[in-house]
Amino acid sequence: VFIKFGGSLITRKDTPMTARTELIERLAGEIAELRKNAPEISLVLGNGAGSFGHYKVVEHDIKAGFSGPEGAFGYADVQNAASALNRIVVHALLAKGVPAVGFQPSTMFTARDGARDGIFPDALSGMTGSGVVPVVYGDIIWDSVRGSVIFSTETVFSHLIEDAISRGNPPRLVMHLTTVPGVLDADARVIPEITPASWPDLARHIARTDGYDVTGGMKHKIESSLELTQKGITTYILDGNTEGNIAAALEGTGYQGTKITG
Amino acid sequence: VFIKFGGSLITRKDTPMTARTELIERLAGEIAELRKNAPEISLVLGNGAGSFGHYKVVEHDIKAGFSGPEGAFGYADVQNAASALNRIVVHALLAKGVPAVGFQPSTMFTARDGARDGIFPDALSGMTGSGVVPVVYGDIIWDSVRGSVIFSTETVFSHLIEDAISRGNPPRLVMHLTTVPGVLDADARVIPEITPASWPDLARHIARTDGYDVTGGMKHKIESSLELTQKGITTYILDGNTEGNIAAALEGTGYQGTKITG
Repeated sequence: VFIKFGGSLITRKDTPMTARTELIERLAGEIAELRKNAPEISLVLGNGAGSFGHYKVVEHDIKAGFSGPEGAFGYADVQNAASALNRIVVHALLAKGVPAVGFQPSTMFTARDGARDGIFPDALSGMTGSGVVPVVYGDIIWDSVRGSVIFSTETVFSHLIEDAISRGNPPRLVMHLTTVPGVLDADARVIPEITPASWPDLARHIARTDGYDVTGGMKHKIESSLELTQKGITTYILDGNTEGNIAAALEGTGYQGTKITG
Repeated sequence: VFIKFGGSLITRKDTPMTARTELIERLAGEIAELRKNAPEISLVLGNGAGSFGHYKVVEHDIKAGFSGPEGAFGYADVQNAASALNRIVVHALLAKGVPAVGFQPSTMFTARDGARDGIFPDALSGMTGSGVVPVVYGDIIWDSVRGSVIFSTETVFSHLIEDAISRGNPPRLVMHLTTVPGVLDADARVIPEITPASWPDLARHIARTDGYDVTGGMKHKIESSLELTQKGITTYILDGNTEGNIAAALEGTGYQGTKITG
């Protein structure tokens, strides 16, 4: 099971570099609870960069890449900010007894002109069987053409899921914990379920999402989730502000959010 | 140029999880100065884990590996401690204007029964040409047989140097900043120079080093440095407590320490 803590959810949108500490602690507690109730589940977690990434990316004007000494410092400053938020999440999980280990995407991925080039998932995939819970994050990746490219947690997840599928060990579920109550239609009502069959009609009526969405939006999230349904993987887009939502989605009932399934 | 900040140097030996902050700031300033005076030099830095790693490794009894849920938490706790010290070093460098980026060894290496298995140096080696200064560290690596194995900064360096050599881009110098004034003989006098020719005789008279040496000692350091001399690489074992010692060794004169050369 892959679970993402959205960047807009776990940081304060209007204050740079500020984490929503209590919410992160509550989510860490829910992960600890999930591990107690379902110890057979291997988890991979991820956290978005939210306001930790956003302001630094703008400050250093590094969204399209970098070159030169000032660019190099911008790269380092953005990576440091992304890493800092990941440390906060890992600390919260450790404090609840979860054997969480931060996994730095910029060490395990390279890119070429915006697309993924190299990948080294061996350490992460080896470790998931041992009880350790890897926590990846949205990060700034070395790009041999542009200098750098931003990989969202979703991009990192999609490459890791692809790798897991190729090893014959696909995840059962993917959960996105967000600031919204689910995928909303034009009247701001939650769409309970999306399938490849229902999507073409629904697509014309969904609402735009709130928060930082440097690397895509809700539509992109839904479309990549629909692709996963072809591999038998179900995705939940969940309200991260609702307590107990992770466990509810795991049971498949009583959750606040949208289910994307085949 | 590869420069290691020894773990015994940058942490307090008798207090767990305590960094020598002022000393780290002074070293960061010397790195910033070096980059200003010799911008053509590509740097790779590394920091030992010192008291951050030592106490946690003992607490979780994880030196030989781990298994089971408690072992997994031990792994996570040790990795977190190693990562925490690396963050301190990276912050100090950023504060002096050095575009330092922490590079997590446990994401880029795997091991099998204590020996290195996989390696993904692509992101690090790509980035060194861009002005970014990677900072690796002593870390706990996933081992498919034992669960885990400790890789010292020196082990990480040796694999990265091997990779750099294989890419036709060997480092010119390696510096180890330590708590000792250099390699000492039995009468505690610094041996100014060691060569493959002089070593067999000197080896019988060197003093034991102080500090944490979970993964080898001074002899191991010297012997792996002697191997590097065959590739034309000179190593300095330097007194990290002497101000300006990095620049002095770079000039090859007036430094406090031992030179290991061919």
